[in-house]
Amino acid sequence: MAGQIAKRVPHLMTLADLSPSQVNSIVSHAHYLKHISLPWLSPQQRGVRASKLRMPSQSLFSKSIALIFSKRSTRTRLSAETATVLLGGKALFLGKDDIQLGVNESARDTARVIGGMCQGIFARVGDHNEIEELAEYSPVPVLNALSSLWHPTQILADLLTLHEHAALFSDPVEGIQNHNPKRLPQLPPLRPLTVAYVGDSANVLHDMLVTYPRLGHKLRVASPDNPKYRAPQPVWDRVVELGCDAGIWWGTDPLEAVRGADVVVTDTWISMGQEAEKEERLKAFQGYQVTEALCRKGGANTNWKFLHCLPRKEHEVDDEVFYGPRSLVFPESDNRKWSIMAVFDLLFGKWDLSAADGVFRQKSG
Amino acid sequence: MAGQIAKRVPHLMTLADLSPSQVNSIVSHAHYLKHISLPWLSPQQRGVRASKLRMPSQSLFSKSIALIFSKRSTRTRLSAETATVLLGGKALFLGKDDIQLGVNESARDTARVIGGMCQGIFARVGDHNEIEELAEYSPVPVLNALSSLWHPTQILADLLTLHEHAALFSDPVEGIQNHNPKRLPQLPPLRPLTVAYVGDSANVLHDMLVTYPRLGHKLRVASPDNPKYRAPQPVWDRVVELGCDAGIWWGTDPLEAVRGADVVVTDTWISMGQEAEKEERLKAFQGYQVTEALCRKGGANTNWKFLHCLPRKEHEVDDEVFYGPRSLVFPESDNRKWSIMAVFDLLFGKWDLSAADGVFRQKSG
Amino acid sequence: MAGQIAKRVPHLMTLADLSPSQVNSIVSHAHYLKHISLPWLSPQQRGVRASKLRMPSQSLFSKSIALIFSKRSTRTRLSAETATVLLGGKALFLGKDDIQLGVNESARDTARVIGGMCQGIFARVGDHNEIEELAEYSPVPVLNALSSLWHPTQILADLLTLHEHAALFSDPVEGIQNHNPKRLPQLPPLRPLTVAYVGDSANVLHDMLVTYPRLGHKLRVASPDNPKYRAPQPVWDRVVELGCDAGIWWGTDPLEAVRGADVVVTDTWISMGQEAEKEERLKAFQGYQVTEALCRKGGANTNWKFLHCLPRKEHEVDDEVFYGPRSLVFPESDNRKWSIMAVFDLLFGKWDLSAADGVFRQKSG
Repeated sequence: MAGQIAKRVPHLMTLADLSPSQVNSIVSHAHYLKHISLPWLSPQQRGVRASKLRMPSQSLFSKSIALIFSKRSTRTRLSAETATVLLGGKALFLGKDDIQLGVNESARDTARVIGGMCQGIFARVGDHNEIEELAEYSPVPVLNALSSLWHPTQILADLLTLHEHAALFSDPVEGIQNHNPKRLPQLPPLRPLTVAYVGDSANVLHDMLVTYPRLGHKLRVASPDNPKYRAPQPVWDRVVELGCDAGIWWGTDPLEAVRGADVVVTDTWISMGQEAEKEERLKAFQGYQVTEALCRKGGANTNWKFLHCLPRKEHEVDDEVFYGPRSLVFPESDNRKWSIMAVFDLLFGKWDLSAADGVFRQKSG
Repeated sequence: MAGQIAKRVPHLMTLADLSPSQVNSIVSHAHYLKHISLPWLSPQQRGVRASKLRMPSQSLFSKSIALIFSKRSTRTRLSAETATVLLGGKALFLGKDDIQLGVNESARDTARVIGGMCQGIFARVGDHNEIEELAEYSPVPVLNALSSLWHPTQILADLLTLHEHAALFSDPVEGIQNHNPKRLPQLPPLRPLTVAYVGDSANVLHDMLVTYPRLGHKLRVASPDNPKYRAPQPVWDRVVELGCDAGIWWGTDPLEAVRGADVVVTDTWISMGQEAEKEERLKAFQGYQVTEALCRKGGANTNWKFLHCLPRKEHEVDDEVFYGPRSLVFPESDNRKWSIMAVFDLLFGKWDLSAADGVFRQKSG
Repeated sequence: MAGQIAKRVPHLMTLADLSPSQVNSIVSHAHYLKHISLPWLSPQQRGVRASKLRMPSQSLFSKSIALIFSKRSTRTRLSAETATVLLGGKALFLGKDDIQLGVNESARDTARVIGGMCQGIFARVGDHNEIEELAEYSPVPVLNALSSLWHPTQILADLLTLHEHAALFSDPVEGIQNHNPKRLPQLPPLRPLTVAYVGDSANVLHDMLVTYPRLGHKLRVASPDNPKYRAPQPVWDRVVELGCDAGIWWGTDPLEAVRGADVVVTDTWISMGQEAEKEERLKAFQGYQVTEALCRKGGANTNWKFLHCLPRKEHEVDDEVFYGPRSLVFPESDNRKWSIMAVFDLLFGKWDLSAADGVFRQKSG
């Protein structure tokens, strides 16, 4: 019976599960939620009436969202907890000492039990199969917070960041969006970009692979010449199934990858659980550090920008880039909160990923 | 002075502390809270006005409830945290790494300090003496979340589950309770049942022993022939004091125990802290696995139902029973939340275990 | 850019950062918040209308406060979590297993990331430099929950406790403050006191050193004759800079220290991380146990009172004093909540340590 209910429950494992317009709706909804939430979060001033402020959807009022985190993840956790507060709900953090999936109890029973008490599950697991099993038996929506294969909420944050900084990639005139200051700012449209990814083929890249080409952006990837640094088969199958492979160039030379890039992205070379391979990986990724020199030599667009999901090690990107004006990493980090808030609102609050308030209100506003 | 105040504070260590009508009030209140809360927890829909929904008592508004858990307990913890949200309050989870009772500070000082900051204490301790000491010095109510001797909130959840499924044990006509669909459903009355418990004499059984006979139900218990698997003296003293022994049959043969049973209950054979005795216990409980064959051979009622507090191991009950139509284990697990919510409302919110809103409102409704 | 913003952000590392009138405003605000909050926290009664109660400032509504605790601290943590609830916000507890400052990520990046998601940071660090680094890069206010050098919120709680018990130190007539029972009680004024501190020179004493003399109280300190038990240079520099040294007597004899004392204070002899020095310290502090005999022999004021920040070991103070009528330790512990609530309201809610509602309302009330 649990299984039968579960089939009608919406889950989100990867952006490959969504249409391009659903992805755009969520990014737009995140932008909307961010702008109506910020005034609530600024220092309280005498005489400012809260009643004049627009309130974020309280779609999680009285609800509890389980955060099942078998691995540490500061940004994802804090985003989820702080976003849930803004939606009127409560996030329950369950770390590896609180719940060990499948150890004291089967993942099946755990999913059914937690789903009977909470109204959504946000799970950061090791092997991707673990979250698939949770989703199979949960009576409430399950959202992938990070798995061995996918990281959907990171790419939503990256897209929000790129849209917000669209003016940096465009003719200045195009960048001006709002003439009426009373209106909420519209999400600026983004021209087709060339996005370079230089590093290990891991969950962040995988969600880029199934998403960016469908949104009209080109992807150029460089990873070391070894099958372990390339996308695993289940990921590549989704890439091909969605026709994304036509928009992807993949090689082994970082210099070639950054050619014409508007955006350069990297991620850790040594993910959690790969500490034993540290030396081998540092060697394999020699020459992959993102620097001004690399991008100049490789021929990146002169005003290229930099993204990184954090935490960052210096071997991946030097201080000049990371703390410099090209870096969008901190707005990107801030946007984890707003994009997770948007998905929580739609998936856990409304069970409907297509019904983004922000989009509708922007149309009528 | 702290001690003087503490004497007037209501605590709840076991259902033996309550009269049968108080137990019924709490179960009825849990049923009431469940039915008014569920609409708040369903997916938010456009156009549905929250203002038309009845609101659960916000008796914990702005209040904090300390969850002092010296052992892990997923269901109890999640029930408490999610129930507190619905009552408008906040649960503070303090695990064994956060507070070690009596290690850095005496239990006496800890009880006084936490009771000065929080409005209730829900404690899951090892030895039962620990929670008695907390209750002695706490200026706010202390509720036993699970101790070596007792597990009161589990039996409240079991009773709610049995009442909800009363029609399964009765003539169908009796099972029909509500003619007016606008009314909140009444808690269905339960005919006197025969409840069999097959397994180790632990906290779950102990609260059954002091409660079921007083509510008119018969208990049939089978545990291995060894004093360690029988109720400890302090428990049996309460059983006798309450006159419950007359309603209890206790033997060593599971087949005899399930004779005429409407409900079959078991629990883990190896509680936390007994891992070293695993082999010995597996041997002692041979033949105790709850199966269709056991209950057929023993002569259980043909439509017997199954309860288990979870987490479950297969040696205690096979998959056919556990995942089959006789199993009420997942509704039972869901009801942990509602029965804990009822006790929190009455004990921590109102300091009055007799004043259940649900009961009164049902009478006048 | 983060650094630039950070300069305009108010932080609070020690009470040395505040003027005497700011300290008084915060203590007064804590007293105000306590008295309007208590009715909300008492057992809910039928027929009592919440609408007639005054509501604490909801300055943290929808906001999240990060509690970064690299060491355990029950009172500070619970105070912060329960106070945040009353202000309408959510505290996110991050223990040493959740975040290790500077290990997986630089303190700089961590401060910027957490400050981008939360509206305040309450940090309990080891070395004081760690919190200074957080404050340097955080875009939101950072409050010191306890560091190797300072413990500002403890002294605010102590001051609130002393003011509340002002009548114990004064002529009884002076102690009567309120003739109109409808009015909120005013914070009773406190006559200049002599405060003795007998023990190790640690963070609690350090904030006393930079605060009490500026408020007109005399300090008499006894610590063993060894530089390690005296205030470190950065602390003493602040003492001298603020002219507090004139109001401080410092010796090595506990008997001399308590002479004329209205209040006797001590703290642990073995702070977290000093466990290896246990034997040495127990020896160094022989004769420092606070007892009736010590204070009689030393010539303390006959109605001297006792303070201790807890947790307490018996070698520091005997049971007769600790649990006796001289002891204010449990009201002092309760007041951790109210003083932390006051600072959270002003620092995290309003970014303005001078604008205490309570003070203004008391004037007009």
